[in-house]
Amino acid sequence: MYQQNTPWTAWTYPRSGQSYYVYYRDIQQPLTFVLVHGSWADTRFWDGVAAELRRQGHAVYVPEYAGHGGNPTVGVTHEMITQSVTDYITSHQLRDFILVGHSFGGTVIQKVTEQIPDRIKRLVFLNAFVLNDGESLADQLPPPTRMAFEQLRKASKDDTIMLPFPVFRETFTNLADLLFAQQMYNRITPEPAKPLFQKLDLKKFYSLDIPKSYLYLTEDNALPQGEGYGWHPHMSIRLGLFRLVKTHGDHFSTIIEDPVRIARKLYEASRN
Amino acid sequence: MYQQNTPWTAWTYPRSGQSYYVYYRDIQQPLTFVLVHGSWADTRFWDGVAAELRRQGHAVYVPEYAGHGGNPTVGVTHEMITQSVTDYITSHQLRDFILVGHSFGGTVIQKVTEQIPDRIKRLVFLNAFVLNDGESLADQLPPPTRMAFEQLRKASKDDTIMLPFPVFRETFTNLADLLFAQQMYNRITPEPAKPLFQKLDLKKFYSLDIPKSYLYLTEDNALPQGEGYGWHPHMSIRLGLFRLVKTHGDHFSTIIEDPVRIARKLYEASRN
Amino acid sequence: MYQQNTPWTAWTYPRSGQSYYVYYRDIQQPLTFVLVHGSWADTRFWDGVAAELRRQGHAVYVPEYAGHGGNPTVGVTHEMITQSVTDYITSHQLRDFILVGHSFGGTVIQKVTEQIPDRIKRLVFLNAFVLNDGESLADQLPPPTRMAFEQLRKASKDDTIMLPFPVFRETFTNLADLLFAQQMYNRITPEPAKPLFQKLDLKKFYSLDIPKSYLYLTEDNALPQGEGYGWHPHMSIRLGLFRLVKTHGDHFSTIIEDPVRIARKLYEASRN
Repeated sequence: MYQQNTPWTAWTYPRSGQSYYVYYRDIQQPLTFVLVHGSWADTRFWDGVAAELRRQGHAVYVPEYAGHGGNPTVGVTHEMITQSVTDYITSHQLRDFILVGHSFGGTVIQKVTEQIPDRIKRLVFLNAFVLNDGESLADQLPPPTRMAFEQLRKASKDDTIMLPFPVFRETFTNLADLLFAQQMYNRITPEPAKPLFQKLDLKKFYSLDIPKSYLYLTEDNALPQGEGYGWHPHMSIRLGLFRLVKTHGDHFSTIIEDPVRIARKLYEASRN
Repeated sequence: MYQQNTPWTAWTYPRSGQSYYVYYRDIQQPLTFVLVHGSWADTRFWDGVAAELRRQGHAVYVPEYAGHGGNPTVGVTHEMITQSVTDYITSHQLRDFILVGHSFGGTVIQKVTEQIPDRIKRLVFLNAFVLNDGESLADQLPPPTRMAFEQLRKASKDDTIMLPFPVFRETFTNLADLLFAQQMYNRITPEPAKPLFQKLDLKKFYSLDIPKSYLYLTEDNALPQGEGYGWHPHMSIRLGLFRLVKTHGDHFSTIIEDPVRIARKLYEASRN
Repeated sequence: MYQQNTPWTAWTYPRSGQSYYVYYRDIQQPLTFVLVHGSWADTRFWDGVAAELRRQGHAVYVPEYAGHGGNPTVGVTHEMITQSVTDYITSHQLRDFILVGHSFGGTVIQKVTEQIPDRIKRLVFLNAFVLNDGESLADQLPPPTRMAFEQLRKASKDDTIMLPFPVFRETFTNLADLLFAQQMYNRITPEPAKPLFQKLDLKKFYSLDIPKSYLYLTEDNALPQGEGYGWHPHMSIRLGLFRLVKTHGDHFSTIIEDPVRIARKLYEASRN
């Protein structure tokens, strides 16, 4: 946390060594964050954001879940993933925390919320799926993408889907340079397919009254923008009353490359 | 107005005492502004913007209207509000001015324009309603919001609507911190309900040929964005030929917290 | 191209003589650009962007085409325009280049791509039309604009359309000041009408597999935004898999007034 007489901080790009400066107007209210990553990711996805949030005085927890980060992928279900996160939260005795989901992680925090609603202070969806009751993530994909996913799934030996590099480069990392896109791609692994196609019972989620925010990165083209698809407003509007925050960014690379700005916006989405 | 050798100005946040700098590229063309606030506001809403516009060499007028700013709220109609603003303009002998409306104020400047079209140089809608002929403001609310407004209206003793704090905090002041949101909420008063539900005859408005602009603050979530609702493009498109300017901001707090930037964008929307 | 120890560059506004600074994070990969302007423009439209791209180490080619830049306008067809650009490319023996189209230029690069697909490294649409097979540009205009274009066409002596100044000022140059808008208007000439109304066979275009990007300037109101019209996502989505980059700007003036930023974003849209 900053003193009022040091309102600036610096962020240095890991690769180029160049820095820029970020202005802090406020002392931040100390919060507890639980960060839930999406598909084709593991807990390293949050390394930069978690470090910056901690530097601002917040407590940050980053659970790994079934089928990711070295856990076996075969037979993974959405229920197993949800249970991983819920078990992490209860074993760490976390309460009154901000539960953040990115991408597929949105569906995870929806289900985790149903299990432990009283522990959660606020939900933050960061370019994350918000499914209607009875929907699967795949139901929210444009038909050509859904068909491509189904074909990739069938072609795999272990019921996983690996994102082809051109799709990752053009729609997940469109604001990054090629080298950084390749570095990020090199560390991702095939995603267990089943949880993406499971239809989720979300009746309880929609009966709960928990504060919610949507942080929208405006250059994210992983889902087509507008015309019946997309993160905002198509997904966000399902939250009912929610706090909207926006900033520039693509689906994947900006969160890793520019963690100071993303952490600042996460805080704006999360504070009381 | 600035000399060319002093292209910078400073804005100091009232609460933190911290400053930032704004760059001025141009000497500004001197204009006359009439600023019309929206619901749950009074003329103080424009204090910062008016001060900054005056500092830039513009003349600024800020009329109060029926049912607001200490005027009695009982029995207020849309016609009375329009008449307040028209009377203010004619009694001050204003001509060739920029008429700015914010939020509900958009419906007011539509009706004022019908009464005194020849006095107006340009209309600027700032995240403001632009009603179709025969519509009420309530007709443009999503059904759940309209129902909530109707219930609040019935529950009041004097036919007013008070915005609940969670709605104000999450959708009017989503970019502010809690303390500033509370300070702004503490000074608002219940809004006379009737003008929000009156269907307006706007045939003359749509027959007039006056230059128009829409200044859109992109994080405004007071109306849902996209999918058949929202300020831009849903409202703005009704203006026909208009000048579009955008900047970051929510519905309420940004205009008060960041008046230098908002005044600059108002000028860009208003200049010849 | 910059050395790593000089990460900053300056851009000076031609009229005011004032400067601002732009940060360069990377050494840029050297590319070859072919820049295709739109209607009511000639090759001078790209002067600033081309100069900046060259300063960054890129090769830049700016073809003039039939009916523009002093070429006779009578009897010009879309086929003649396409042939002008294709001839320019083949006569200059260009290969492995980024083909950029602005506005109407989008329809030109669609047809050029059909003729010489193997020479093109990537297509970049900059607030450009992307027509479906069998459509004309006029088919993508809102009905009132299409009717106005048809009337202007009939009223001309040589089958051209001249944009009225208020339309140019409010929807092509909405972010510029009046003087700059007038200067830009003074150098435009009537546009040959026929190519805007020709329906184009684009079956081959949609059968080709060439990398594509859409660079979207977010204040462009030359086409209405959203609700079934507009550059992004309405046009962009037709590209299938594409890279999305956004920045502030209107349809016409920003590209001329702020070439350092636009060139930077064109590079981000174009790099591998």
